[in-house]
Amino acid sequence: MDQRSVFDTSVVRLEGAAVSTADDVLAVEEPLEIQVRRDGDPEWISLSVTMRTPGQDDELAAGFLRGESVIRDRRDIVAVEPWGPLTGELRVRNIVRVTLAASAQFDACQLRRNFYTTSSCGVCGKASLEAIDAMRPPALEHREFHIATATLYKLPARLRESQDVFGCTGGLHAAALFTPSGECIAVREDVGRHNAMDKLTGHALLNGMEMRDKAILVSGRASFELVQKALMAGVPVLAAVGAPSSLAVQLARAFGMTLAGFLRDGRCNVYSGEGRIQAG
Amino acid sequence: MDQRSVFDTSVVRLEGAAVSTADDVLAVEEPLEIQVRRDGDPEWISLSVTMRTPGQDDELAAGFLRGESVIRDRRDIVAVEPWGPLTGELRVRNIVRVTLAASAQFDACQLRRNFYTTSSCGVCGKASLEAIDAMRPPALEHREFHIATATLYKLPARLRESQDVFGCTGGLHAAALFTPSGECIAVREDVGRHNAMDKLTGHALLNGMEMRDKAILVSGRASFELVQKALMAGVPVLAAVGAPSSLAVQLARAFGMTLAGFLRDGRCNVYSGEGRIQAG
Repeated sequence: MDQRSVFDTSVVRLEGAAVSTADDVLAVEEPLEIQVRRDGDPEWISLSVTMRTPGQDDELAAGFLRGESVIRDRRDIVAVEPWGPLTGELRVRNIVRVTLAASAQFDACQLRRNFYTTSSCGVCGKASLEAIDAMRPPALEHREFHIATATLYKLPARLRESQDVFGCTGGLHAAALFTPSGECIAVREDVGRHNAMDKLTGHALLNGMEMRDKAILVSGRASFELVQKALMAGVPVLAAVGAPSSLAVQLARAFGMTLAGFLRDGRCNVYSGEGRIQAG
Repeated sequence: MDQRSVFDTSVVRLEGAAVSTADDVLAVEEPLEIQVRRDGDPEWISLSVTMRTPGQDDELAAGFLRGESVIRDRRDIVAVEPWGPLTGELRVRNIVRVTLAASAQFDACQLRRNFYTTSSCGVCGKASLEAIDAMRPPALEHREFHIATATLYKLPARLRESQDVFGCTGGLHAAALFTPSGECIAVREDVGRHNAMDKLTGHALLNGMEMRDKAILVSGRASFELVQKALMAGVPVLAAVGAPSSLAVQLARAFGMTLAGFLRDGRCNVYSGEGRIQAG
């Protein structure tokens, strides 16, 4: 467990009529600024500030940039480095700087603009789907990829076994990467569910992992944003322990991704791409 | 229940080895753009786009602006109106326009800038707390406000009883406002937990409710952002069914707010301001 991910404190514990003081462990939340520049450019550009749990900031930045289509693979990144002073009791750096190859599709204005508007219908879900289409997500054509229902049902327990910070804080969202046979390859945790997903997809990208034959499980609900990130990473199957939103389902259906929700206790609902799930 | 909050679809239901199709109801997620201008100004300024569940968009906008200290009370708002075409199957408008009184503290550049940086330590938690201090939150001096432990323990069940959309979709975060005697005054739900909080505090602001003698319960975890919104609304007690983050606890402690976490099954942890909770 990364010691920068937890924070010790004392609390007043109330249980029925009993009052006591106790030591408690909290999940750390600190701001992280992502800065980028093309290799050779003089200026760093601040792209976003997110509240995250420190640790794997390089992966978070890589995953974020992949999700927004700024980079498409490992070669688009020249370097990822922590920056800024060591701050707070935990001595963490809260800036991460990404040097992009000249090949990276990078338009700061485009990134900051409102992605959800079109001239035809204004701000709407349809425009949000069109914005993703414009980012040219990897085609999910890997028809050979299947996962058995019995394997699928085992994923939540395997995720929980792998969550080390949640175990002591109860305060983190998690995202985990699985093979079709249900082997857990990587787990990432964060106070923000989008950050946990960015860390996971960034980890895969930085390590050059093939994603077309993998499934991702998230510990909470599936939002539009989480489907977007999994889709841009090229993952054909996204499962969630909680419920999906309407726009998450619409996005998965539009791009042929398999989306399962309420995956727990040996059951789930499949909202899209059920062909990749096999009985047995 | 607002019919724009739910979306009917069919799903493939897997349960053990059984496969069936079923009708399902999803929580709606659609983008909402918040635009503002001072009364008499010619131009509307786009402040933010958030993915939200349609319904109570006026409250969401009012709460968001209160949380960012753009407005301080009802008199700072001249009008709040839905805008843009009716889009999608659900026929919702996805822009909300807020006309501000000349008295409103409004600086678009400041709102868009990075709140989490100081010259002394760079981007850090301490700078985030200083940014809140600079927004001058209402003083939480109402020392007469107390809530009994027995009352506190009852709040989660009362929240669940009042959640109508969650009941059918399982997909929404909730925030609810309570009196010291445990009466639930208002509940708001959304796919985004920050939106549920904005709708609740916005509802209170638009209706001129006194907040110094109220408590808020949120259905999930307590982040920095949720404590910020409750603090700016002037609520002295925030309770969460889930865990708080480190920065949420630091913010509550810095401003003397009562923050309780893991409130369920007749117990909780109190991280700050335990003086407002009384035995019995």
